Amino acid sequence: MNIPVGVSARHVHVSQADLETLFGQGATLHPKKELSQPGQYAAEETVDLKGPRATIERVRILGPVRPHTQVEISKTDAVKLGVDPPVRESGHIEGSTGLLLIGPKGYLELQEGVIVAARHVHFSEEDARKFGVHNGDELDLQAQGERGLIFNHVVARVSRSYRLDFHLDTDEANAAGLHNGDEVEVVEVHEEPRWQAPQSDREPVKSYSEHVGK
Amino acid sequence: MNIPVGVSARHVHVSQADLETLFGQGATLHPKKELSQPGQYAAEETVDLKGPRATIERVRILGPVRPHTQVEISKTDAVKLGVDPPVRESGHIEGSTGLLLIGPKGYLELQEGVIVAARHVHFSEEDARKFGVHNGDELDLQAQGERGLIFNHVVARVSRSYRLDFHLDTDEANAAGLHNGDEVEVVEVHEEPRWQAPQSDREPVKSYSEHVGK
Repeated sequence: MNIPVGVSARHVHVSQADLETLFGQGATLHPKKELSQPGQYAAEETVDLKGPRATIERVRILGPVRPHTQVEISKTDAVKLGVDPPVRESGHIEGSTGLLLIGPKGYLELQEGVIVAARHVHFSEEDARKFGVHNGDELDLQAQGERGLIFNHVVARVSRSYRLDFHLDTDEANAAGLHNGDEVEVVEVHEEPRWQAPQSDREPVKSYSEHVGK
Repeated sequence: MNIPVGVSARHVHVSQADLETLFGQGATLHPKKELSQPGQYAAEETVDLKGPRATIERVRILGPVRPHTQVEISKTDAVKLGVDPPVRESGHIEGSTGLLLIGPKGYLELQEGVIVAARHVHFSEEDARKFGVHNGDELDLQAQGERGLIFNHVVARVSRSYRLDFHLDTDEANAAGLHNGDEVEVVEVHEEPRWQAPQSDREPVKSYSEHVGK
């Protein structure tokens, strides 16, 4: 049984308050392109991300607005910016990394909210039944081809409002040679998550110097 | 049985002729840091890589000089530069991608030589016997941790002059959450390579637009 691939480039979700800090009082998001998950869209608006080591310009905001601002970047981006965000499921930003966001009308010193998104699959309830998967299960997914690999610890997320899609970031897509529209195969479903997050993501920043062009 | 991990950041190997084009007549490389493979070193010298979309500055040259100039970048780098190099084993550069190299004394319009390095393990002859591996075999390697995954199609390279090391690029290391000094476990050894390179890497450039921050 196969699942289509959706590659997530770096992006930002914003709260209404933070949107107004960055784009001015009363600002709203302007949809530019629909995304695979119903109701979600890429907005016209972008912000710059400024870290201790570098700035990444024109990072797309995804709408609609959310309760909390959240920045999702790859580890490659993190190395470039000079930050070390934890790998987290979307919405789990407690104790995560901060960053400076720069908009056309103001800037925002984000104290937490920067994460590397944990790879996951969106299942509609119908697809979840078809695959024999429940919300919170962990999947092993096989990517084929010259960079073929098996992703472990892929989180299953089930909701009436979801559409079947395997979300991974650009590092993961590049490592596996995957592109939007490719498919991966479900190798195994684990009812209990096998990997337990250690407390280490609250520990001091680990050096990423080996990733940098020395 | 475990193998230590060595993450390869983007780098350049140069021929003596191309070194002189970039750094002036009679130029030599100046070792800065020894690498894990005996006799190999990171040089003081760096070059800029200029692609159709962007330039990446100060990319390290690795020594000693080789018969052919070869540029090894990640797919993330390739997207940024605006090129689409094939995944190849080191030295197999026929029909690969070109790029402009800029040195302090001149520039070089490389016609081919830009590749994404195929992940591989260096085995000494003694380690190869210990692991039951022969040159050209294909390995499946398990990375543990929150981004755990199994790399398929890992090429085994055996030589008297090698030291045990699993070489992967920064995309692959980031996708698996691996750092220098971590270890991976050999899950399986395949005596016949299972993945046959299609001719597709000679086909027209495929769009990487999904990787870019749109």
